[in-house]
Amino acid sequence: MARADERLVAVFGRGVLEHPDEPAVHADDLGLTRGDGCFEATRLVVFADGTRRADHLDAHLARMARSAAALDIPFDEPSWRSLLDDVIAAWPHEGEAGLRWVLSRGRESSPSDPVTGVVTVVPLGASTIAQRHGVHVATIPLGRPARAMSEAPWLLGGVKTLSYAVNMAAAREAVRRGVDDVLFTSTEGLALEAPRAALIWRVGESLGSTCHDGTGVLASITQAAVFAGAEADGVETFLDLISIEDLQQADGAWLVSSGRLTAPILSLDGHSLRQSAEWTARLHHWFEATA
Amino acid sequence: MARADERLVAVFGRGVLEHPDEPAVHADDLGLTRGDGCFEATRLVVFADGTRRADHLDAHLARMARSAAALDIPFDEPSWRSLLDDVIAAWPHEGEAGLRWVLSRGRESSPSDPVTGVVTVVPLGASTIAQRHGVHVATIPLGRPARAMSEAPWLLGGVKTLSYAVNMAAAREAVRRGVDDVLFTSTEGLALEAPRAALIWRVGESLGSTCHDGTGVLASITQAAVFAGAEADGVETFLDLISIEDLQQADGAWLVSSGRLTAPILSLDGHSLRQSAEWTARLHHWFEATA
Repeated sequence: MARADERLVAVFGRGVLEHPDEPAVHADDLGLTRGDGCFEATRLVVFADGTRRADHLDAHLARMARSAAALDIPFDEPSWRSLLDDVIAAWPHEGEAGLRWVLSRGRESSPSDPVTGVVTVVPLGASTIAQRHGVHVATIPLGRPARAMSEAPWLLGGVKTLSYAVNMAAAREAVRRGVDDVLFTSTEGLALEAPRAALIWRVGESLGSTCHDGTGVLASITQAAVFAGAEADGVETFLDLISIEDLQQADGAWLVSSGRLTAPILSLDGHSLRQSAEWTARLHHWFEATA
Repeated sequence: MARADERLVAVFGRGVLEHPDEPAVHADDLGLTRGDGCFEATRLVVFADGTRRADHLDAHLARMARSAAALDIPFDEPSWRSLLDDVIAAWPHEGEAGLRWVLSRGRESSPSDPVTGVVTVVPLGASTIAQRHGVHVATIPLGRPARAMSEAPWLLGGVKTLSYAVNMAAAREAVRRGVDDVLFTSTEGLALEAPRAALIWRVGESLGSTCHDGTGVLASITQAAVFAGAEADGVETFLDLISIEDLQQADGAWLVSSGRLTAPILSLDGHSLRQSAEWTARLHHWFEATA
């Protein structure tokens, strides 16, 4: 068990808890019993001089506002920002940490009560940091066509809900297959996203990522940050769908997320992908430049 | 807010809580942050003489064992049965209640700690009981082929996980459409299941329900109980897939679950379905006969 001083817990409406091991959520919370809520996670960096930065916090708050709206859950953005500011200021450890905040519909027995919100901070795991050097990836079917989410808002495509059981099962499938991560594919054999990361690929001097419209692919903050930096440097970017065969022939591919940042895909289904240390460095630079 | 004495909360490893409004779960519980766990729910009936019965408790415990195994979460069946026995004995109110128990992978910060388990009891809602008289239903696409779950265990087909955000969004979609419930359909236009109920239909003197193999449809305890009773009475039953057009022409259809029991579908997408009070009574009798 991690030492108690190596994590921090805050509760929406209460603030940072004195004891992070104190239970904070009720047994009938719809976030627990139904996965009925949404979350965000980003990296918190504390530098040697004590200054600190939560990567792309504004963009994460904006995405949580969209997730909450899709779920019909009230999202009080100023109060969340204030709580997150308190949490960020209270975290005592230099280095990289994972900052996560969770919003649920609240207690089933008390529908008139406020929503539930919790924030946690823990040091970033060594395995996450190690994967920045590259990941071996296997494809697994997600069991639906690429455009399955079109005009079906109840399927919550692109909403970062608490209902991540399939994402977690997919991560266990990666372990079973002896790879670092999996990439979901549509019934047409098109690449979608990883359970907790977005896909970027390179074709010559341009960068592509999976389009969101109707695909249910989460609009990745990390991918958007990289693309914003790339575009500022005159590099062309595009959103599209790509087959696994074409992805294996691309000039490089990466899984990007707030913890692993811009991890090059070393192999896909056992097929080695083209590597470019220069492009990996460029992606990382664009991420940092906009963070 | 429901009065505190009108609900009961128990925690796995601790027993029935003295104060049901005491927080019982940690902020970093994977059941909350990832919907990473499973649950069961059934009806608890307390008769006028104080005797009580949790419907089909053995079958629900057996299904939770299957769900937990699919999620690689330890399930200590004897301890759960003992806790549920205590909860059932402690519930003070005559009449019908909803008994629900939740198992999660436990705290992310403490992977070596035990799993998390909570049990809640609340009186059965009036709207649930009212729907036993019949439900108006609209179909909504689930965005995947009927057999999408074949050989893809990471999609958790048929596992009663805590990741129910889409089911809850579908229930809100029913309200938006002015109906009592929705029925999920595959991309081929085949009926699958309701967000929280199974489908039974009648063809002449036989009863059908959606097959589970590869469809991801939850193996319903209520449907299995009805079919067991029907078979004991010499009525033929079968598992199959049915189109919405054929369902609209069936000799009757029902949504069945532990709370609404055997609710006849009055209309499907505005099309009135054939009604038979006799068959609805037979289904209810078969459910009660095996409970």
